[in-house]
Amino acid sequence: MKYGGNTACIELRFENPERLIIIDAGSGIRQLGDYIVANDLPKGPIRAEIFLTHTHWDHILGFPFFTPIYIPGTKLKVYGPSTFEEDSLADVVGGQLVYRYFPVRQAELASDIEYLDLKEDRLDLGDGITVVTDPSYDEAMAREGEQVAAEQNQRIEEFMKNADFIVHDAQYTRGEYESSRLGWGHSTFEQTIAIAKRAGVKRMALFHHDPVRTDTQIEEFTAKYCDSAYTGDTEIFFARENAEIEI
Amino acid sequence: MKYGGNTACIELRFENPERLIIIDAGSGIRQLGDYIVANDLPKGPIRAEIFLTHTHWDHILGFPFFTPIYIPGTKLKVYGPSTFEEDSLADVVGGQLVYRYFPVRQAELASDIEYLDLKEDRLDLGDGITVVTDPSYDEAMAREGEQVAAEQNQRIEEFMKNADFIVHDAQYTRGEYESSRLGWGHSTFEQTIAIAKRAGVKRMALFHHDPVRTDTQIEEFTAKYCDSAYTGDTEIFFARENAEIEI
Repeated sequence: MKYGGNTACIELRFENPERLIIIDAGSGIRQLGDYIVANDLPKGPIRAEIFLTHTHWDHILGFPFFTPIYIPGTKLKVYGPSTFEEDSLADVVGGQLVYRYFPVRQAELASDIEYLDLKEDRLDLGDGITVVTDPSYDEAMAREGEQVAAEQNQRIEEFMKNADFIVHDAQYTRGEYESSRLGWGHSTFEQTIAIAKRAGVKRMALFHHDPVRTDTQIEEFTAKYCDSAYTGDTEIFFARENAEIEI
Repeated sequence: MKYGGNTACIELRFENPERLIIIDAGSGIRQLGDYIVANDLPKGPIRAEIFLTHTHWDHILGFPFFTPIYIPGTKLKVYGPSTFEEDSLADVVGGQLVYRYFPVRQAELASDIEYLDLKEDRLDLGDGITVVTDPSYDEAMAREGEQVAAEQNQRIEEFMKNADFIVHDAQYTRGEYESSRLGWGHSTFEQTIAIAKRAGVKRMALFHHDPVRTDTQIEEFTAKYCDSAYTGDTEIFFARENAEIEI
């Protein structure tokens, strides 16, 4: 299997100084944890920041299988959205580690894990790294109507303006979405690519593939949606397991 | 990928009269749900019994993705172990369906789902189908010492006596288990096969593969552990995705 197989997890490596930032803790974080233990741990204790875009299962279910949480000396900061519910982020994410669901409890972990609600629009992580969150996406999901959608798309386009690299959800074709997935809160290839082109994005990876996709289908989509006749100056490709992008 | 890719889910089909029983709701149940919708639903409303061996993630996380739960007219009975905790089976399994984790809440499901604690040793499902649960497995996990293990293995052997077909956990080789997985509560190929041979089992599928296994490894194991010189009169094979066994 070339495309897919795991749910969302993106690893960001920064150099000078070295920083490790992980976006989402879907099932892909298991393999990343194994890599970190083999390659980073020999150099010293593991430090990482994990950002959760939201706490739906496919974005958090790998967390109990992320080996560094069992290693003394590991320090993790886990940032996630405020749920506006009774339970804290520690309960929502770390609560996966209870005996009924898993052989190990969160309190037994050897690592030091700090959970932080991500409420800011901009968060300065130091070393010139800034995390910007934009509620346009949530609003675009929650509200309906073409005028509203147009306004949100305008904000998303500004957010992407001249970006070197974007990783973007694009689960469905427009045809699939309009036939039966209206309001499911995912993006279409067509809409995502159109916005990226208008924003002057240099490169964009389409990810969060529909789980029923086959490699053959994605290769057919590649022929159709990633051709420069269609994408213009924006390079578009479908994300695959272990793809490495240098920026 | 030939072996693995999904977590535990076994479909049992009975004829005359037709009955559908599902063992465990790991990620494999998603694909099973799609099959049921395509092939069973046209013949009438879906009826099934789901038995959960235990409620660790890998045995329940497919439940929210089992399409029949969204279809009016579906009737499911979900049997699981008493957790001896505050929360009911409905909360432990159905509690995966809350907004923080999933876009749909359990109360919104169109199907009729009944949750039942499985406390009996023997449960008569009618049509000549009996479910027998044996606490030997749990005890063997919870207790230690060779004498205890020998007694448990004796009970497991009696439980398997002359069985036509057994599906059995066998996550590790003995070498892997003894080097670093003692007390993890999984079985080894060597022990499982030895007991099955003594019990006169006709056929046995080894399943619940270690998630890091590759197809190549399992094929190497097949050459070693499934050869009749090693297995005698018991036919042993490694379970793979979509394998169909007629009994």
